[in-house]
Amino acid sequence: MDQNHQTSVSTAPLVHGGDWVGYSEKYGTQPLDFSANVSPLGVPQGIKEAITAAAEIADRYPDPLCRSLCRKLAAHEQVSESDVLCGNGAADLIFRAVLAQKPKKALLPAPTFAEYEAALTACGCQVEYYFLREENDFRLDEGFLQAIIPGIDMVFICEPNNPTGVSSPREFLLRVAEQCSRCGALFMLDECFGDFLEKPETHTLKNTLSEFPNLVILKAFTKLYAMAGVRLGYALCANGELLKKMREAGQPWAVSSLAQAAGEAALDETAYVENVRKMVMQERPWIMEQLTNLGMRVVPGEANYLLFHCPISLIQPLRQQGILLRSCSNYHGLDENWYRTAVRTHEENICLIQALNEVVR
Amino acid sequence: MDQNHQTSVSTAPLVHGGDWVGYSEKYGTQPLDFSANVSPLGVPQGIKEAITAAAEIADRYPDPLCRSLCRKLAAHEQVSESDVLCGNGAADLIFRAVLAQKPKKALLPAPTFAEYEAALTACGCQVEYYFLREENDFRLDEGFLQAIIPGIDMVFICEPNNPTGVSSPREFLLRVAEQCSRCGALFMLDECFGDFLEKPETHTLKNTLSEFPNLVILKAFTKLYAMAGVRLGYALCANGELLKKMREAGQPWAVSSLAQAAGEAALDETAYVENVRKMVMQERPWIMEQLTNLGMRVVPGEANYLLFHCPISLIQPLRQQGILLRSCSNYHGLDENWYRTAVRTHEENICLIQALNEVVR
Repeated sequence: MDQNHQTSVSTAPLVHGGDWVGYSEKYGTQPLDFSANVSPLGVPQGIKEAITAAAEIADRYPDPLCRSLCRKLAAHEQVSESDVLCGNGAADLIFRAVLAQKPKKALLPAPTFAEYEAALTACGCQVEYYFLREENDFRLDEGFLQAIIPGIDMVFICEPNNPTGVSSPREFLLRVAEQCSRCGALFMLDECFGDFLEKPETHTLKNTLSEFPNLVILKAFTKLYAMAGVRLGYALCANGELLKKMREAGQPWAVSSLAQAAGEAALDETAYVENVRKMVMQERPWIMEQLTNLGMRVVPGEANYLLFHCPISLIQPLRQQGILLRSCSNYHGLDENWYRTAVRTHEENICLIQALNEVVR
Repeated sequence: MDQNHQTSVSTAPLVHGGDWVGYSEKYGTQPLDFSANVSPLGVPQGIKEAITAAAEIADRYPDPLCRSLCRKLAAHEQVSESDVLCGNGAADLIFRAVLAQKPKKALLPAPTFAEYEAALTACGCQVEYYFLREENDFRLDEGFLQAIIPGIDMVFICEPNNPTGVSSPREFLLRVAEQCSRCGALFMLDECFGDFLEKPETHTLKNTLSEFPNLVILKAFTKLYAMAGVRLGYALCANGELLKKMREAGQPWAVSSLAQAAGEAALDETAYVENVRKMVMQERPWIMEQLTNLGMRVVPGEANYLLFHCPISLIQPLRQQGILLRSCSNYHGLDENWYRTAVRTHEENICLIQALNEVVR
């Protein structure tokens, strides 16, 4: 079964992109992977060295409190140290938050990242979807605000959204936070792709944590630092009681000592981050233009990936050319004609466009 | 607050041993750590090399199905490949099993490993304790079997038990499995320390998986391969439906690609394993004799640690000598006069005994 064409998000893990193992076991070679949204510049040297050094003493248990990493993260994010909780990737923190909150009913936009629903369903929560409209480029609108009513315990928003790449005005997100406060809902704001925005600092809500104790911001090292295989994410929240519950909603040693060391090293990789951001901002408009020229409808995303519509089946033909693309058929609110592609290096992006060109012809 | 003297198992992560970070942040040096039960021979070279190699391609997402590792594990454990589920340490699998099963009432022996209760409590399950009797060396007995009655949804047993090191006859464990079947309870058999027994193969229930679809065996790389910081454990179970639910009761990428590579390398470390086992089997009786000579009551454990009773407060005096010991005051059924020590190298064990000698005098 092709992982990209499964329709249920909760029956198997391979509904997501990035299944290079499945590809290489079948074809015996490594694919060019546009199905996972990670930095195309590879693991920074400093991170590799930190992992190698940490492996030397990996006989010890990891620090369950990630004390050293949390201190460095707090300084990096300019938040209080007690507001930081590290996890085994942001996905770990999604499950912890749901298990800590035990919501009865949650509101999700559709389409969005599948793990919110997976976590809510695993914990027996009823999920309501607010379907974003294509003609509006899948942007959040007033209707979403109106859907946050008493009885909704938890609201997830991904900013910029995955798989659309579209973001909302900060003003709108503040209104969501306020409406969640009024309704007693926990507001989970996933900023995992926020650092790919042109001006992350004018978009994030991290400086409003103390105003909104019902706000949890999720971030990850996965994408920006090319660390998807290492697993490291974090939550920012000013509600100490909630963070304590999230800590208890999972094992104490979720974050490996390798990941803790990698995270500390990552925060020093400022030149790498500038390079990745510059490349994404150069390449994204280029891919967008090329896809449009091929007759595809491209959603004007602002992250390191683009969502586009194509009436022709692309997954298998591209696989045969060694390229993985993400089918969006398993997202609520999309169908098999929607695809998501990562933004990679110029050379790699040319390969993608050439391959698409052949298929579309 | 000293982590070793907290009394609640669910309020903070530092109820467990192994807090070398807390020690080194306070004293500026590394402690000699007898509070965590890991192999004293350090991370095997082959594992370190595998981690370094895996770091090179850690920009890719880990294989959510751990396909290559599961194949190797299945061959190693002589079970079917479909019976293996890997996790971010065995603790991850404990939480997944509880969230998958959603038990209303669970039975635990006391004392035992604290994470069973932590996971059950986090999921809102009521916990019943069967208190093991000191005069019986904390062995499981007929009363435990009789406590497995309809209405008990889940039973945890750690074999050999942590922190006692005591094991049960295989015949008894089979009767527990049968009684759990009759009552519709899931039987979680934690064999994480099973490989330290003199004859692991005559104790494990892994060859009964197909007879008992309600049996989940937990194992970990943590202790035997000195990989506590890497995080890798696995569950063995013949109930495919349950394993599927456990997969869904957490994120798809729980096991890092570093851990998957480390696990594959670990399974080749047969000489290392023989050395660790030999050392533990030599040193355990030696420590036992020395502790007894110091006037302490030692429980005849069979793993790489020993539980002993001492009316004198030991934690702080040993810390001042640079040694971490595990206070067992936070275990149900034990008090502040009980301690657990790891079995380490002969040189290190001499240090422990000398330090204890000074304190006891």
